[in-house]
Amino acid sequence: MIKPRTPPGVLELLPRDQIAFQRMLDTIRRTFERYGFLPVETPVMELSEVLLTKTGGETERQVYFVQSTGGLESYKNQLAVMSESGNGIGVSPMVMPPVALPELALRFDLTVPLARYVAEHEHDLAFPFRRYQMQRVYRGERAQRGRFREFYQCDIDVIGKDALSTRHDAEIPAVIASVFEALAIGEFTIQFNHRKLLRGFFEGQGIGEGERQAAVLREIDKLDKRGEDAVRATLTGEGFALAPDVADTLLAFSRVRATGHDAAQAALDALGAGTALFDEGRNELREVLRQLRALGVADDRFALNLSIARGLDYYTGIVYETTLNANPEIGSICSGGRYENLASHYTKSKLPGVGISIGLTRLFWQLREAGLVATADSSVDVLVSLMDDAGLDAALSLSQKLRAGGLNVETQLEPRKLAKQMQYADRAGIRFVVIRGEDEVARGTVAVKDLRRGEQFEVAEADLARTLLVEREQWRALPSAQSARPGVKA
Amino acid sequence: MIKPRTPPGVLELLPRDQIAFQRMLDTIRRTFERYGFLPVETPVMELSEVLLTKTGGETERQVYFVQSTGGLESYKNQLAVMSESGNGIGVSPMVMPPVALPELALRFDLTVPLARYVAEHEHDLAFPFRRYQMQRVYRGERAQRGRFREFYQCDIDVIGKDALSTRHDAEIPAVIASVFEALAIGEFTIQFNHRKLLRGFFEGQGIGEGERQAAVLREIDKLDKRGEDAVRATLTGEGFALAPDVADTLLAFSRVRATGHDAAQAALDALGAGTALFDEGRNELREVLRQLRALGVADDRFALNLSIARGLDYYTGIVYETTLNANPEIGSICSGGRYENLASHYTKSKLPGVGISIGLTRLFWQLREAGLVATADSSVDVLVSLMDDAGLDAALSLSQKLRAGGLNVETQLEPRKLAKQMQYADRAGIRFVVIRGEDEVARGTVAVKDLRRGEQFEVAEADLARTLLVEREQWRALPSAQSARPGVKA
Repeated sequence: MIKPRTPPGVLELLPRDQIAFQRMLDTIRRTFERYGFLPVETPVMELSEVLLTKTGGETERQVYFVQSTGGLESYKNQLAVMSESGNGIGVSPMVMPPVALPELALRFDLTVPLARYVAEHEHDLAFPFRRYQMQRVYRGERAQRGRFREFYQCDIDVIGKDALSTRHDAEIPAVIASVFEALAIGEFTIQFNHRKLLRGFFEGQGIGEGERQAAVLREIDKLDKRGEDAVRATLTGEGFALAPDVADTLLAFSRVRATGHDAAQAALDALGAGTALFDEGRNELREVLRQLRALGVADDRFALNLSIARGLDYYTGIVYETTLNANPEIGSICSGGRYENLASHYTKSKLPGVGISIGLTRLFWQLREAGLVATADSSVDVLVSLMDDAGLDAALSLSQKLRAGGLNVETQLEPRKLAKQMQYADRAGIRFVVIRGEDEVARGTVAVKDLRRGEQFEVAEADLARTLLVEREQWRALPSAQSARPGVKA
Repeated sequence: MIKPRTPPGVLELLPRDQIAFQRMLDTIRRTFERYGFLPVETPVMELSEVLLTKTGGETERQVYFVQSTGGLESYKNQLAVMSESGNGIGVSPMVMPPVALPELALRFDLTVPLARYVAEHEHDLAFPFRRYQMQRVYRGERAQRGRFREFYQCDIDVIGKDALSTRHDAEIPAVIASVFEALAIGEFTIQFNHRKLLRGFFEGQGIGEGERQAAVLREIDKLDKRGEDAVRATLTGEGFALAPDVADTLLAFSRVRATGHDAAQAALDALGAGTALFDEGRNELREVLRQLRALGVADDRFALNLSIARGLDYYTGIVYETTLNANPEIGSICSGGRYENLASHYTKSKLPGVGISIGLTRLFWQLREAGLVATADSSVDVLVSLMDDAGLDAALSLSQKLRAGGLNVETQLEPRKLAKQMQYADRAGIRFVVIRGEDEVARGTVAVKDLRRGEQFEVAEADLARTLLVEREQWRALPSAQSARPGVKA
């Protein structure tokens, strides 16, 4: 007998949690489609050679390699042959020549597969290419609470050929706002900054282009984790050796926050004169703010936050982070930005883009930990009950009518006590139990127990589907529908 | 520069095919939910020890193992240490002791993960447990046209604890019928047989329980591939040594086909007397037929077919296959059956079940090869066009109004010639292009080009969302909606 268990670092859900998770996925997908993004799915396995274009990064150490049984055999043989080739003398593992990597590896994000996809299908795609992708990715993370080795990413990107208007940069926060309004997991703020503004400001402080600038940027990015004092100490310490007043100027800059259109425009004005790069960044931000207003994004949904740097080197323009106002400890729930060239490893075409990513598995887990995910009602709307074997055919037929009417129906196929059937429906989160008692049959009606309202009513059998459908839609339209079910802890 | 390409044996789609594929997935999911099945997703990686409970089967030779970079290193070291332990003398690969398998492996179907899931969460689930699962599975198949190493399976199963009424066996074909009616990929027939009927009939012919019976069953299962003559030769040849008249009786039995309730009941009657096992199978089939009628499944959707055996040993009752009437060469598009015990490797509880599986990746590929998948319209309903920069804010604002009204909208963010925008929309399969010309603005209207009907009309801006939504819903309701778009090859 083998103990049934999942590997560490994966999130497997019981059905009611899975329903809640699936509803979040559906909501995100529907919103991405509202904004005209097209679906893409890529294989979970990529050729190692294609996936691992950069070497030595942290991500590469976390890659999962894949080998079929046959592949493993050949790997074993390759190593054995190598140890034999040492003329009968075993070769120490320290001096063993490198063994070829396995041919296949699991994707560790959706960006590299997107780069490969766009480069591979370049001549079949229309640019700007707007795609969404919602699939799982894999990282050999150290096993740790809240760290996942398999998790969903929900990404959108807009990819231009040769060039991409910065107007796309303004549409992205509108998508983010619509997604999180639809998810209804609390008030949120989309915060943004601009790499050109940041780098231009550094230039103005004598910290020019190059490795030093990048290193300062990475330090600034640590502000929320390390705090101002620690970052100032590092910046003025041996490695960076910034003058204290320069360090203070950088920190003062990074403290700038301004929520909504008018405040953000004013804050940008107040930054004063800067280098050409600085002005370019500022003008782009001003235009993004203007368009957010045209897009009708509410003022309290977005803020300028000059401390945001995003660690990743490949961002070159606007960068976004999104936080839940009441749960800052969760960190950014949706991040991204503008990059210069998506697929330089695969094509000579220049492919600039802008995009964001939602790590849904981690977000769901965090929301659940914080008590912010209500137990979902069942995806089943109705249980058609069964009292005795004689009622089976009628129950089957009635169930089919309700299904044809658009309801999700489970039929009780074996007779049980009604109380047991009610109890089952209640525990499963099924709202309606339909009962065809003798009296009702005589009247051409059915009895319906509404477990959510705790009421029972009688309705003509011919009107049943329509009545329940209307009830369901009305309930869904209530803002409190997710948490208002009696007996279910929100 | 690295050539961007996918590994062999995966199906990666361009957006319009992906949209068609996604619609099929959505339709299947919606139908599974209509019948009260609950969603389950499991990790793609399972512990090897848990996944590979049986050894030496074909499937196990096709398993993909997974190792993180660190795991690969330790594997290498393990082998190197082994070769050193031979006292400086390299150990031949032929005599190398077995190396431990990698800890993780990719699931090769959804049945083993279901068994693990149900056993692991046994005390948190309500039985009968009705779950659907629609995820990708992985098999190290030989690379070959139409054979996939990564493919979607769409499964439903009903799992009982200790026992499961055969009434569930009748509901399954109703689900199959609803799925393929909704998919609208052509007329189809759900064919079924019963293992007890089959084995009872063999018993009656002196082919008793055991390995010989199983071997004969596997031969019968090859009828459609090898033909009657070859199977008869095998059955009467050295290995089986069946008397010629026994072989003929088996073949005559396997020729029985009867479409619809009345014909199938009559065919079952005509089989005459049999063993107790035979009668048990026949009675179960009769009851399934009766319930299919109560469920309103049309007579031409199902047939008794006594040649169906399903190779897999674990089926113990009814077995199903589904074929497209006009495309028998595609083979079964949805198969399954009843089994005695799902999870004997993981739990002492007896968990009988019944289920089916649709291999959607292969089906989609075959339908496309056969020209049966129409190019999908875009998931984008509307392109809001842009003539000049001055119109940007109005275009953004109008787009948001249409989105709020439930339409999927792409905004043209950079002005281009209208003809180019039309061409783009047409190629992308976007139905409506909205144009805000000067005249229309003056009148408070917008012009709409309907690329599907090839018409242009004018509508008040305030009515635009509703008008387009109604148009879209009306079109979707047409039975010919999938193939009637002019200019798109069905």
